[in-house]
Amino acid sequence: MSKIKVIFDTDPGVDDAMALLFLHFAPEVDLVGITTTLGNGSIDTTTRNVLYLTERFGIDAPVARGPDTTLLGDAPAPADFVHGKNGLGDIDLPATVGRTADPRPAFQFIIDTVRANPGEIAIVAVGRMSNLALALRADPEIAGLVKQVVIMGGGFGYFGNLGNVSPAAEANIHGDALAADEVMGGAWPITVVGLDVTQRTNMTTEFLKALADDGGEAGRFIWDITRFYEDFHHKSGVPNIFVHDSSAVAYLLQPSLFKTRTGAIRVITEGLAIGQTIQKPDGRGFPPSPWDGRPSQTICVDVDSEGLRDLYRRTILRGA
Amino acid sequence: MSKIKVIFDTDPGVDDAMALLFLHFAPEVDLVGITTTLGNGSIDTTTRNVLYLTERFGIDAPVARGPDTTLLGDAPAPADFVHGKNGLGDIDLPATVGRTADPRPAFQFIIDTVRANPGEIAIVAVGRMSNLALALRADPEIAGLVKQVVIMGGGFGYFGNLGNVSPAAEANIHGDALAADEVMGGAWPITVVGLDVTQRTNMTTEFLKALADDGGEAGRFIWDITRFYEDFHHKSGVPNIFVHDSSAVAYLLQPSLFKTRTGAIRVITEGLAIGQTIQKPDGRGFPPSPWDGRPSQTICVDVDSEGLRDLYRRTILRGA
Ligand SMILES: [Ca+2]
Ligand SMILES: [Ca+2]
Repeated sequence: MSKIKVIFDTDPGVDDAMALLFLHFAPEVDLVGITTTLGNGSIDTTTRNVLYLTERFGIDAPVARGPDTTLLGDAPAPADFVHGKNGLGDIDLPATVGRTADPRPAFQFIIDTVRANPGEIAIVAVGRMSNLALALRADPEIAGLVKQVVIMGGGFGYFGNLGNVSPAAEANIHGDALAADEVMGGAWPITVVGLDVTQRTNMTTEFLKALADDGGEAGRFIWDITRFYEDFHHKSGVPNIFVHDSSAVAYLLQPSLFKTRTGAIRVITEGLAIGQTIQKPDGRGFPPSPWDGRPSQTICVDVDSEGLRDLYRRTILRGA
Repeated sequence: MSKIKVIFDTDPGVDDAMALLFLHFAPEVDLVGITTTLGNGSIDTTTRNVLYLTERFGIDAPVARGPDTTLLGDAPAPADFVHGKNGLGDIDLPATVGRTADPRPAFQFIIDTVRANPGEIAIVAVGRMSNLALALRADPEIAGLVKQVVIMGGGFGYFGNLGNVSPAAEANIHGDALAADEVMGGAWPITVVGLDVTQRTNMTTEFLKALADDGGEAGRFIWDITRFYEDFHHKSGVPNIFVHDSSAVAYLLQPSLFKTRTGAIRVITEGLAIGQTIQKPDGRGFPPSPWDGRPSQTICVDVDSEGLRDLYRRTILRGA
């Protein structure tokens, strides 16, 4: 089996860490790099977390650090009420990490890696879109050299669900809406798994406990980091944790788990709906609009949640 | 049975005419007034059409004319490719109509009628929201005196459907977005039937033919005006006509046909998403946002389409 070369762009984050382990243990994935974004923690926190995770789980992919602000120059507050102050559910972490980051900024690492592997790289982006946008600005031609981009972000209104950080917007896209609009307009083949779909899949305490029992060190680690995250869901009136970032990995590994729709995507960059993702569905007639001339991208509109959970469990158990 | 006193705010429009006949033949409705808006035709066209319809079908409710511009002072082009140049599917219409409009502007007619019938008036609004917004501006207290408001407009993303005049917006709301935002913020109990729900119900050629056969003059009239409208749907790749405005009437008559959700509503008044309706669902946590402090309104999220069609047919056949 020829492996998929993957760059994982991430802001761990509890569900990011779960997704990283999903990629790490997936036999069809060759993880060639990890780039960090601010979001669930500051860029210091998320980069430290990636370095820690790679060290602890023997993941030898290089790690490149993203910028400490969005494309607009601001730095949204970390979502520490969701992921804990340390971004990993406030489990005990060592004071220092031995591994260090690649000297290049994340966007340059992406450009270099794509150019070194033309047509072979899949980017799975589950944080702010800043690194992807900066890479595209610095070297627009990479869009044509990337095999595919899978994004966890946004929301398209399926099941009446557009957002979580506002009634219109999801955190990854809202957190750097300008970057997201540039990325969605890039001439690379994107699939977006929005939270209207990621929130269709949850993991119960029992499911996570079984991972802890059967999944070796990774399973026990997932149990540990999800205690805080699960508590946040409970406080929000949600009985079980949502499976956000791992849904993007699942799309990469087994796209047949998802139903999709194609069409140009715009991201709202100002006003009440800032951060909203809106697709103009292919095949439906509209008057001329700012969606025209943009590439048709794919969004997920539903998922086989049971199949996704099965795939996740099977994959994590490979490491046990 | 005590009847519901209804003001119908409308821009006929083929589906407006179908909805007017639905109200007219509904035994539980006392149609106490009809107000006109621009939209499917100019204000001259829609007002002429209402006067014609009331004369032809013996509807004795007064008719009051709305303004010839939106609250922003513009006048969007009529949707004549949907409803025909005369707004009634380009059927033959008489050169003149005997009936004349009430001397009051529509918003004043609404205020006077609501104040004369405190707590008793239901407003069914299926055009631009201009008249309702002007009434609310001129006499904010009427909000507390209106029994209910049912609006056909907007779209909340259910079934992935946000709009028709843009990927984000539906025509009634898009056509006077400022008015719509003011109306949704009013302290009157609103139910919105958005196009994500109205497009769940269609009427086939066979259904319409059966109305023509069994529904007397009204049934034959509906058949005649829907020829152009059906043709528009076919040209758009839609096999059967959508039931937009009559869905609002159906909610008034039999709300149990619908599933609903509550929460504050904002309308986007600028930018790419202008005209989009966004609800902040009650019971879900969000950071502070411009939805806060607004009244909780009701939106429809699904419909029993078969039940709606049955109700429509039964009602029209009462006039046969
Ligand atoms: Ca993330
Ligand atoms: Ca209408």
